[in-house]
Amino acid sequence: MEAIHVGLLGLGTVGSGVVKIIEDHQDKLMHQVGCPVKVKKVLVNNLDKERQVTIDRSMLTTNVDDVIKSPDIDVVIEVMGGVEETRKYLIEALQSKKHVVTANKDLMALYGTELLSIATENGCDLFYEASVAGGIPILRSLVDGLASDRITKMMGIVNGTTNFILTKMSKFGSAYEEVLKEAQDLGYAEADPTSDVEGLDAARKMAILARLGFSMHVDLEDVKVKGISSVTDDDISYSKRLGYTMKLIGIAERENGKIEVAVEPTLLPESHPLAAVNDEYNAVYVYGEAVGETMFYGPGAGSLPTATSVVSDLVAVVKNMRLNVNGQSAIAPQYEKQLKGSEHIFAQHFLRITAKDQVGAFSNITSLFSDRGVSFEKILQLPIKNSNLAEIVIVTHKAAESDFEEILQQLNDLDVVHEVKSTYRVEGNGSL
Amino acid sequence: MEAIHVGLLGLGTVGSGVVKIIEDHQDKLMHQVGCPVKVKKVLVNNLDKERQVTIDRSMLTTNVDDVIKSPDIDVVIEVMGGVEETRKYLIEALQSKKHVVTANKDLMALYGTELLSIATENGCDLFYEASVAGGIPILRSLVDGLASDRITKMMGIVNGTTNFILTKMSKFGSAYEEVLKEAQDLGYAEADPTSDVEGLDAARKMAILARLGFSMHVDLEDVKVKGISSVTDDDISYSKRLGYTMKLIGIAERENGKIEVAVEPTLLPESHPLAAVNDEYNAVYVYGEAVGETMFYGPGAGSLPTATSVVSDLVAVVKNMRLNVNGQSAIAPQYEKQLKGSEHIFAQHFLRITAKDQVGAFSNITSLFSDRGVSFEKILQLPIKNSNLAEIVIVTHKAAESDFEEILQQLNDLDVVHEVKSTYRVEGNGSL
Repeated sequence: MEAIHVGLLGLGTVGSGVVKIIEDHQDKLMHQVGCPVKVKKVLVNNLDKERQVTIDRSMLTTNVDDVIKSPDIDVVIEVMGGVEETRKYLIEALQSKKHVVTANKDLMALYGTELLSIATENGCDLFYEASVAGGIPILRSLVDGLASDRITKMMGIVNGTTNFILTKMSKFGSAYEEVLKEAQDLGYAEADPTSDVEGLDAARKMAILARLGFSMHVDLEDVKVKGISSVTDDDISYSKRLGYTMKLIGIAERENGKIEVAVEPTLLPESHPLAAVNDEYNAVYVYGEAVGETMFYGPGAGSLPTATSVVSDLVAVVKNMRLNVNGQSAIAPQYEKQLKGSEHIFAQHFLRITAKDQVGAFSNITSLFSDRGVSFEKILQLPIKNSNLAEIVIVTHKAAESDFEEILQQLNDLDVVHEVKSTYRVEGNGSL
Repeated sequence: MEAIHVGLLGLGTVGSGVVKIIEDHQDKLMHQVGCPVKVKKVLVNNLDKERQVTIDRSMLTTNVDDVIKSPDIDVVIEVMGGVEETRKYLIEALQSKKHVVTANKDLMALYGTELLSIATENGCDLFYEASVAGGIPILRSLVDGLASDRITKMMGIVNGTTNFILTKMSKFGSAYEEVLKEAQDLGYAEADPTSDVEGLDAARKMAILARLGFSMHVDLEDVKVKGISSVTDDDISYSKRLGYTMKLIGIAERENGKIEVAVEPTLLPESHPLAAVNDEYNAVYVYGEAVGETMFYGPGAGSLPTATSVVSDLVAVVKNMRLNVNGQSAIAPQYEKQLKGSEHIFAQHFLRITAKDQVGAFSNITSLFSDRGVSFEKILQLPIKNSNLAEIVIVTHKAAESDFEEILQQLNDLDVVHEVKSTYRVEGNGSL
């Protein structure tokens, strides 16, 4: 039977892993797809560089067209990274009727909608499992699940660096700066950690998940983002007292055809499955109307998990080629994007303020909430030593974001309020 | 394009769900597999019974041969339950070259090896995703993962009833009998709860998982089983003090080609992801050499999740039919079964004893351990009020099961030991 030929863009750690898996598992691949799968050409920067994998020099090229335009190549695997140039290459590959597998989340978050529509126009598959939570088959599970279920909500811990930092802060009561430094020393955080700690990396992944799960053209700028750099050890310690664990959570929710996508530090009840996802691990919690709650947990990155995901995508492409169903999968957005206004985003809120310890202060504060129909689930008030201030921590019942924001404005103006220290979203408490 | 025709055995809650999903999702199915999929014939007991789904009466039959032997049927879906008669039907279906999808864990645990080998002989697929943890795509994830990874260990909470009971005991400090009664009142436990609480249901699922994950002929009697009926609230409270959560855990482990499969009440560190799996939920934790730790969490039962799983299997069968790769999947065992002896099963152990509160008692006890090279990770000793006894709780470092059992024997004979109250396996503590 005729072999399927694969071209790679890039031969770094992930690329070498992909080549090795394809070579080592020829028999298994053959059993799964019914024909041989061979690596034919690999784009590299330097033909003479030493490689982590044995590869015939004749298979290497420095000319991208040998991969993306060659009539001998059926599937292009992109593991070179980068955005603008890579986008150009993949568009050309798709226009040359090559199926594409990519592990590039930045590219997919920024240009996923465009690339997927070009893929569909050209009858090609474009798979990108490894771009979100490398070692977890979450995109495939969403697609498979979607065939017979409707997804209403996803909550994900999709950034390993921030989860490592929050886990350490929570476990040892350490300060943010201290743990960030440790993460940098260990290689878990980059020298410039902005993309991770400010939530941008997580936002890219949530845009990809929301687009797929809700079948809408979700763009990166539709994701509301708040990072963890302002989270204090005090916030964590007070939330612990009330039974919560702090996580950087990506939320994507659909209600009556309208969606919300956000990434923000969020408090979860300690008993929530996502609260037990620690260190650099990732997990995605999915609510489907038929199946109910499911969660997928695993390593979010790493070259072997990522290469494994890439090969799974390759297997799916090859199966589709042989079934002649490429480019027809449910991945192209089916619904028009409609974003929820803040008056339709309901959540519980954690609020920590310092207030003057005087008669009537508490009722002044609480009346702001009751005026807008917002009630409390938990309240904690403690005196602050050697001051005439009290620390007040409140967890509201579900309230509209717009109401909560107006309450916050008014709290800031209130004479008895010394300072609004912090607010966090609270999720996972009982029913949706 | 020619349609694929499906026959059902059984039209209860799950069967009706399957019929409904296939009808409601014709377009999506067509997109996935490239041809129409139609239900053609359904075996029922009573043609006149009212159904949960609208179905043409001409499609119903009381003659099983109309489904399993009809030349018009390509795939047989078994959702009737039962073991002996059902086995006979499925063998005949496979011999008539029908692909089979079943949700029947009892059948697959007892006769899975036989049925799978008959399927392979006849070039047929036999898929059974819904038989283990109904709403979690665990078998498919194992098979997909196996194509490019090696699984070394699986730990699963695969029985909802016992997880509900242990969760309640742990949360409210209630006694076993009390919570069992509550579970029965709520319909989470059956009037005769033996199969659940004695671990047999979990053992069936672990046999299925181990067979698939390790590609060996694992039989039900290879699974060491201990249920939860002797777990006391004291055991749970002492294990909590030492930072552990009690769960009924199914373990399947492979080392140097030899395997161990066991189901027993097991203590996990509170920070372990499985420790946060509460109430009637299921989860399976998988360690792969390449991908590392992953976990799949979801509802273990329920008619909609189960029907969804069955339809996923059906999609896989139809894809394979169109690829012409049926009966070749990696599901037929490849390795000879080799079970570990108890001298090769290493685990940490929790031990609770009462001992006479006298000089030298503790050193009498501990020397039994040190004589066999077994050391301690945690020790807790507390006086028992109004008695001359002390309660001693010990957690050992990893020790061979054979050593630990001999120590237990000798402890029973020791004069200073009043009673060995309980012992539990401890898992999930650091590295494998």
